[in-house]
Amino acid sequence: MISKSTIRLIASLAHKKYRDERGLFVAEGVKLVSDLRARLKPYAIFAIAGGGGGGGGGEVVSLSEAEMKKISFLKTPSPMLGVFYLPRSGSPPLLAQANRPTLALDGVQDPGNLGAIIRLCGWFGIDTLVCSPSTADCYNPKVVQASMGAIARVAVCYTGLPGFLQAATARGIPVYGTFLEGQSIYRQPLSSPCIVVMGSEGRGISPEAARHIPQKRCIPSFSARCGVESLNVAMAAAIVCSELCRK
Amino acid sequence: MISKSTIRLIASLAHKKYRDERGLFVAEGVKLVSDLRARLKPYAIFAIAGGGGGGGGGEVVSLSEAEMKKISFLKTPSPMLGVFYLPRSGSPPLLAQANRPTLALDGVQDPGNLGAIIRLCGWFGIDTLVCSPSTADCYNPKVVQASMGAIARVAVCYTGLPGFLQAATARGIPVYGTFLEGQSIYRQPLSSPCIVVMGSEGRGISPEAARHIPQKRCIPSFSARCGVESLNVAMAAAIVCSELCRK
Repeated sequence: MISKSTIRLIASLAHKKYRDERGLFVAEGVKLVSDLRARLKPYAIFAIAGGGGGGGGGEVVSLSEAEMKKISFLKTPSPMLGVFYLPRSGSPPLLAQANRPTLALDGVQDPGNLGAIIRLCGWFGIDTLVCSPSTADCYNPKVVQASMGAIARVAVCYTGLPGFLQAATARGIPVYGTFLEGQSIYRQPLSSPCIVVMGSEGRGISPEAARHIPQKRCIPSFSARCGVESLNVAMAAAIVCSELCRK
Repeated sequence: MISKSTIRLIASLAHKKYRDERGLFVAEGVKLVSDLRARLKPYAIFAIAGGGGGGGGGEVVSLSEAEMKKISFLKTPSPMLGVFYLPRSGSPPLLAQANRPTLALDGVQDPGNLGAIIRLCGWFGIDTLVCSPSTADCYNPKVVQASMGAIARVAVCYTGLPGFLQAATARGIPVYGTFLEGQSIYRQPLSSPCIVVMGSEGRGISPEAARHIPQKRCIPSFSARCGVESLNVAMAAAIVCSELCRK
């Protein structure tokens, strides 16, 4: 059984304003919820009775399929939905910790792309993802789903990029950014630890951040018909992470 | 003005059966439709009057916004929708033409992933994408949208992979595949021209195709918590293409 106020609470968590006010976010799917439970404090877990949510602790609320449909954000609801407390994000972003590169995003607004990039960071062992305040919120339900559980392991920090990049440069950490007019990452390799800034697909890196990026790089196109094709920011991030970690 | 039969025709093109029967497919967006018009024969182009569809030839049909909503597959319809004739796909896939690698997909069913991979091939100048019959149809409206126009430049060929791979091996073309248990692509580089097979996220490469793949490779995870993270097939394809073309 689920009360009307709980249904309203969960629905409200689609919006950043209410996520912040209540300190909660939503994740769906048996595997994703289990992954998150290993690391984050659950507020409540809902599971369809007999829906494969076995092994749940005392706080699992059993639901009918019809009730799950009422609270799910997915077209095809999964048997399990978890509401978790937002992890504290107070700590300032660490600069290039322990030989690991840091990725920084400037205004990436598509939730699917942000989630895919968080997942990518998980794969490549990149612990910190720095985001400009203009980047999508990482606790948006679509981002959480696309991250495939990596949201619990990658620290996503929101901060103004100009100040962050300035501080990094002052500490001698190389700062790179991807620009259409940059030098090829294959010819001028990235030296790690470092910070690599990537912009939104539509507008690229903002002029305010670009001012603090001394080293401009690009992923060259190998097409003879240059200028027509473009690369999705998540795909570009995959290539950058691969180049950073391949050595 | 748009007739009811045209609305029905366009709606039917969501399904492969009707696309094949009618030899038509749909693309939306001013840039995408313009890109496709440069290469493919349009059956009809529809544009919202004054909606930025300037430069259209005689076959552009003016519509109201309400009419566009009726025919669009998008949540937020764009000012232009084109119906194009399917290009002939009769020619058998070329094996590793002119020093270019060939990508082959085995059962990749997510339309967004397939579209992203076609777009990626466009960026990296890979002219041919070979797909198993179990892979999503490349003229599915979602694939066309995600390909960002690259669908007009990349030849997507559907064929049984076992026979295709056998023929390639017989001609001395290296055949690789990505497997969780393969050797690192960073340590055992891919020699190009070659064919690289990638499987679906859920099930990987089918045993039938795997039998004809002599060289198994993987993209290693750099996370200390191996086994939990996974990589999306489109991201994996981006990394493979980058490795193939970076030299």
